[in-house]
Amino acid sequence: MASRRRKRERGSARQLPAAPAYVTRKIPFVEYVQEDGLVKLEEQADWILQEIGIEFREDPVALEIWKDAGADVKETRVRLPRGMARKLSASAPSSFVQHARNPEKNVRIGDDATVFAPVYGPPFVRDLESGRRYGTIEDFNNLVKLTYMLPSLHHSGFVTCEPCDVAVNKRHLDMLYAHMRYTDKPHLGAIVEKSRAEDSVAMARILHGSEFVDQNCVIMGNVNTNSPLMVDKVVTEAIRTYSAAGQGMVVAPFILGGAMGPVTTAASIAQAFAEALVCCAFTQLVRPGAPFILGNFLSSMSLKSGAPTFGMPEPVASNYIIGQLARRLGVPLRCGGSLTASKIADAQAAAESADSMHSTIMGGANFVLHAAGWLEGGLSTGYEKLLIDADRLGAYQKLLGGVDLDDNAIGRAAYEDVEPAGHFLGSAHTMSNYETAYYDAAMSNSDSFEQWEDDGAKDTERRAFERWQQMLKDYEPPDLDEAIDEELQAFIARKKEGMADAWY
Amino acid sequence: MASRRRKRERGSARQLPAAPAYVTRKIPFVEYVQEDGLVKLEEQADWILQEIGIEFREDPVALEIWKDAGADVKETRVRLPRGMARKLSASAPSSFVQHARNPEKNVRIGDDATVFAPVYGPPFVRDLESGRRYGTIEDFNNLVKLTYMLPSLHHSGFVTCEPCDVAVNKRHLDMLYAHMRYTDKPHLGAIVEKSRAEDSVAMARILHGSEFVDQNCVIMGNVNTNSPLMVDKVVTEAIRTYSAAGQGMVVAPFILGGAMGPVTTAASIAQAFAEALVCCAFTQLVRPGAPFILGNFLSSMSLKSGAPTFGMPEPVASNYIIGQLARRLGVPLRCGGSLTASKIADAQAAAESADSMHSTIMGGANFVLHAAGWLEGGLSTGYEKLLIDADRLGAYQKLLGGVDLDDNAIGRAAYEDVEPAGHFLGSAHTMSNYETAYYDAAMSNSDSFEQWEDDGAKDTERRAFERWQQMLKDYEPPDLDEAIDEELQAFIARKKEGMADAWY
Repeated sequence: MASRRRKRERGSARQLPAAPAYVTRKIPFVEYVQEDGLVKLEEQADWILQEIGIEFREDPVALEIWKDAGADVKETRVRLPRGMARKLSASAPSSFVQHARNPEKNVRIGDDATVFAPVYGPPFVRDLESGRRYGTIEDFNNLVKLTYMLPSLHHSGFVTCEPCDVAVNKRHLDMLYAHMRYTDKPHLGAIVEKSRAEDSVAMARILHGSEFVDQNCVIMGNVNTNSPLMVDKVVTEAIRTYSAAGQGMVVAPFILGGAMGPVTTAASIAQAFAEALVCCAFTQLVRPGAPFILGNFLSSMSLKSGAPTFGMPEPVASNYIIGQLARRLGVPLRCGGSLTASKIADAQAAAESADSMHSTIMGGANFVLHAAGWLEGGLSTGYEKLLIDADRLGAYQKLLGGVDLDDNAIGRAAYEDVEPAGHFLGSAHTMSNYETAYYDAAMSNSDSFEQWEDDGAKDTERRAFERWQQMLKDYEPPDLDEAIDEELQAFIARKKEGMADAWY
Repeated sequence: MASRRRKRERGSARQLPAAPAYVTRKIPFVEYVQEDGLVKLEEQADWILQEIGIEFREDPVALEIWKDAGADVKETRVRLPRGMARKLSASAPSSFVQHARNPEKNVRIGDDATVFAPVYGPPFVRDLESGRRYGTIEDFNNLVKLTYMLPSLHHSGFVTCEPCDVAVNKRHLDMLYAHMRYTDKPHLGAIVEKSRAEDSVAMARILHGSEFVDQNCVIMGNVNTNSPLMVDKVVTEAIRTYSAAGQGMVVAPFILGGAMGPVTTAASIAQAFAEALVCCAFTQLVRPGAPFILGNFLSSMSLKSGAPTFGMPEPVASNYIIGQLARRLGVPLRCGGSLTASKIADAQAAAESADSMHSTIMGGANFVLHAAGWLEGGLSTGYEKLLIDADRLGAYQKLLGGVDLDDNAIGRAAYEDVEPAGHFLGSAHTMSNYETAYYDAAMSNSDSFEQWEDDGAKDTERRAFERWQQMLKDYEPPDLDEAIDEELQAFIARKKEGMADAWY
């Protein structure tokens, strides 16, 4: 902790609601690697940036920005002298507030604050009765609504599934509308094409007001680098849109070890850190002080097939290590999630997700995309998995809150009522504490075997299926000013009018 | 770490095989509670021992031992002045070797060494096709054989299920025989009646030789205190048998918060620590230097029904905290396990087990009973759960081993072959490292959805069912000297001859 630079925080605590809609960590961070190991990893990242360099492709403006900053630019290769990326990154805040349209749902990201968001990107969805199929806009809206209703998801994410029945070039408009209309939690915006990022910021301006957006983070872009060591225009154009507008950027190298990076874990971590670090520096060149979240997504592979694997000990370890590196850099961290290669919400899915998430939260992640709903290596969003994961997120929230150690919690008074060999049920200390003593897990069944059998011997997936069906029946949309709603719909209609459907 | 007393280790590293059959931790310990909080918990334990005291019932010899040691004994209440229990515990080793009949399976328990053992105690077993039923001696032998074949289970445990078709008073003999004949891993012995503990040590003497047993730990007794704050003769007689013979003792208070202890987590931890600490002190009065493992088993409860719950954040946190307390005391720790309230090996079972185990290992447990096979709050042993858990134990073993940070792992050479935007598959660095880079999880399926569906769309439980059936077909017993085998069988026959069957 001593080595952690404390930097200015963007947005004061006074902006936050009384009961913050995010997790506040009250326990120490985990140190998995010792100081000398961390220095080695940082030196390797510096070496990569100085000696190998990063390809910045498809965006001449980005190359100009690097040249102006004094980087060594040869064609599309950008090399940064040792320390330059870190020095530029110093203006990125260690934490910041992302504003929701409902101020009670504002989140702080960074330092001791952690925010959970659902899975991002799957083209498929799965539920217990309909099985696996391409996602539709109906699925998408359902998933936004469920995320709104699940208290341990603080953030609405963005592509909770791909709405594959909407044209590729128009999809982002419908997704943005859903995140602005059916929920009041904060969310991400579109990427891929610069115009879609611009649409996202434009719609955020309608929702929040232009002046507010200029002074506050209300939306963020989330992108992957093109590992190894390539940053394409998807990244730089998103940064030149979101960061330039003072909005947040999340850059997460996705490295399948042995494919997009070396197969050894240490090397993958150093490469991912270098890639994210150079993007952090780039955001600060575009707009000093713009909120940046350092991302990390490492995957291992199956020896038998070369297929990506999830929840395995090497990526689990990397969550702890990247946490240490991000704290030393002093920027918020995105890593981990409830990851699995399983096709269904079974024991494999839950075990892999839990080990992945446990290290994610104990390692100090501040923004956790894929925190719920991820199946099948990210190819599929599970309705049941969303609920099962979200239930565990509530448990992690409590774990991060630490254990009370005041006089009541130490409980000396309890022994005034209860003798050795006695029973604490019904004692004054138990009665005054039991309602808040333990996490109330919605998806865990603690009935006796006989009760459970009488109730139909339902497994977790079945119970989750029944629960989300009921939740959708109970869903009520949060209020939205009618004028704003109309303006959003008019914006979308206008944009769609000018475009032919594109399906790729 | 600075506050950790390093004490003499019993058994030198030279006694251990070249490839130790246990886990060696290479990462730092997790500090969940700060120093001042730990002092509060220790002070509360001291206060309990001095002001409330512990009931030592049913064993006048134990009371005499306490009187002779200078404790304040009034009828059956034993009070220890502040610091006395800790001072007596100083002679307990911080780690020790438990010898197996095959020296290559010897385990070290304590300090940086961790040992995994299967579930202990369930009267029921469950498998996917036969469902839930009372355990039999055939189930018991099967489970001992499977544990023998699973490399991440280092220890055979003891009551992997209750063999309910054997008379209660004879069961321990058949169980001991199975652990001595069908496996060559170390195991525990019987408790409950002093004669059964004595039979365990007697049979261990046949297996290992009397002289060897006198000088080395070859068997251990595992008992629960009778919380709150009661220690009955099951505990003291086991200690007066196992510890007196220089064998190991594990004492684990089992506290369902709000019933056998206060409902607040801090209070339960302090009480459990006090109960285990006083038993540690008692072992050292019986035989200074006798190996002792400080146990801890805290459970939370459902607000709705009062039923015990597992894998919830409060017991998960307690694993981290009791780890800190045990290190400060300087004795090996037993805690946690793959715990769940689920009736089957589904998502609930896996999630609860994973969070419970992740904190168990990261928190620094040295001996993990219930590390595999536990279902239904410990009422049932799952055949499939045993295999699924054991597979995850292999992952935890790798996680505890840390991440290589040597030049090869940092992988600078990898970039000689691979340019930015290139591909590491087939590169020299990948080829020379990929076989050992990632954990090979036997129970995780990373196939594509289509492959998985073509193979029958089997969930984890189904794959585990098929695997254990095949394993039992492949089982071959380890060699055992025929004379010893005959002597063991003769001992059992002689003992059984003199007893009428008792069924309760």
